[in-house]
Amino acid sequence: MTASAAKGRLIGVGTGPGDPELLTVKAVRALAEADVIAHFSKRGANGNARTITGAHFRDGVIELPLVYPVTIEIDKDHDDYRSAITGFYEESAQAVAAHLDQGRTVAILSEGDPLFYGSYMHLHVRLSHLYPTEVIPGVTAMSGCWSQTGVPIVQGDDVLSVLPGTMSEFELTRRLADADAAVIMKVGRNLSKIRKALEATGKLDRALYVERGTMPNTQHMRLVDKTDDIAPYFAIVLVPGWAGKPGADK
Amino acid sequence: MTASAAKGRLIGVGTGPGDPELLTVKAVRALAEADVIAHFSKRGANGNARTITGAHFRDGVIELPLVYPVTIEIDKDHDDYRSAITGFYEESAQAVAAHLDQGRTVAILSEGDPLFYGSYMHLHVRLSHLYPTEVIPGVTAMSGCWSQTGVPIVQGDDVLSVLPGTMSEFELTRRLADADAAVIMKVGRNLSKIRKALEATGKLDRALYVERGTMPNTQHMRLVDKTDDIAPYFAIVLVPGWAGKPGADK
Ligand SMILES: C[S@@+](CC[C@H](N)C(=O)[O-])C[C@H]1O[C@@H](n2cnc3c(N)ncnc32)[C@H](O)[C@@H]1O
Ligand SMILES: C[S@@+](CC[C@H](N)C(=O)[O-])C[C@H]1O[C@@H](n2cnc3c(N)ncnc32)[C@H](O)[C@@H]1O
Repeated sequence: MTASAAKGRLIGVGTGPGDPELLTVKAVRALAEADVIAHFSKRGANGNARTITGAHFRDGVIELPLVYPVTIEIDKDHDDYRSAITGFYEESAQAVAAHLDQGRTVAILSEGDPLFYGSYMHLHVRLSHLYPTEVIPGVTAMSGCWSQTGVPIVQGDDVLSVLPGTMSEFELTRRLADADAAVIMKVGRNLSKIRKALEATGKLDRALYVERGTMPNTQHMRLVDKTDDIAPYFAIVLVPGWAGKPGADK
Repeated sequence: MTASAAKGRLIGVGTGPGDPELLTVKAVRALAEADVIAHFSKRGANGNARTITGAHFRDGVIELPLVYPVTIEIDKDHDDYRSAITGFYEESAQAVAAHLDQGRTVAILSEGDPLFYGSYMHLHVRLSHLYPTEVIPGVTAMSGCWSQTGVPIVQGDDVLSVLPGTMSEFELTRRLADADAAVIMKVGRNLSKIRKALEATGKLDRALYVERGTMPNTQHMRLVDKTDDIAPYFAIVLVPGWAGKPGADK
């Protein structure tokens, strides 16, 4: 009991979609109180979550950058990728655990909401059964994006399908064919495939493209008005449900 | 131009799932600056969004309660319901517009995220093309609920299906059969139907039930451990994707 009482707390902190004002009051407090703040990033760049939240770190906080050993350039299905990334999550969990064992409170930043496609989850499943853990939910990227465009996404009996753009074209098409409203995440290099799937299912016309939603350099447009298939990592496609329904009452 | 420049601003404010600390910093600021704060409620009760946010209203703010003329007791598909509720939204939009025409900034509270199944949408579609409008996204109820239970909901190529519990048992079953991960909203009186659909699709075993997520009197449990089918309006069912996959790697 004594050893366990001395353990630090793990906190998964959702940072929201990009606008620093979209942090929750609870996240701001957790950041100000944390002894250690861990954040994922790519080599040579501060992570985006670090940029969103930096203003709230307290003086003298210990920063623990968790730097991905591989980038999205390597094929996800490749064995080298899998073993490199698994090793990375193991080592990251150990680095966090070392602080927790010293009784320090460790906040791990997560863009958007931590348990919704976030890297934080890989540490959560390794640590949350061993240390007292709290997850602070965040505004998701999709909420940030549809709020920015002002388009009602779902109402009443609408079903919302959230689809990773990394799926096969067949699966994406099959899912879109049966969707009322849809959000396509992880657009990046998948945009031409996504466009084909939307076209095949008659939904291209009402699809919206949002790049870096709620960030300073954001832009959004109807996908049919986007003249190329070049999209950054932080991009999403929205297919509104309600608004797209013929005769949808107000 | 002069008349239009004198118009007030409309702001849809997401209040998050229930815990007042899950308000965003932006929402807190908008509430402190608003001239008028409108909120939906049932006759004889302050709305939940009002309860979450009340601490941030400025002295002298004008409150505009929008009181539903009908309750969920009346069948949604009934014509009387439809006309009563449409009339109510029309009148509410006019009441908000009257303040906007006086140059007042009007914040309309919306539980969770405003454009995600929120009543705010009914005013948004009536007013946002007429007045400068901003939507402040909020933490959704589902994010609040899965964070509280600490269960990773989706990762990698998982699809998330958000299903209103108000759908027919057939449609709910059909959708669940094809779901990786699912969130079932609007549980209330639909719980026995939801249970049947989960059972039929082999997903009852991993379903979680969350009542009043992030609120003081919240509780959650595996749905199989819930011994009755009585659920309040603020209840959700979660079917985790990732965690439920055989051999899901960490
Ligand atoms: C690994 S997922 C993380 C999702 C995040 N946890 C959330 O709650 O939204 C990364 C994907 O989220 C989307 N995304 C994140 N931030 C975004 C933003 N500001 N604008 C558009 N898309 C964004 C992109 O589709 C990106 O590929
Ligand atoms: C009209 S929808 C509003 C959804 C909201 N706009 C959002 O972003 O989550 C109402 C439904 O949301 C769910 N809900 C809202 N708050 C909740 C809470 N604190 N706990 C569990 N479910 C909640 C319930 O399923 C409820 O029937």
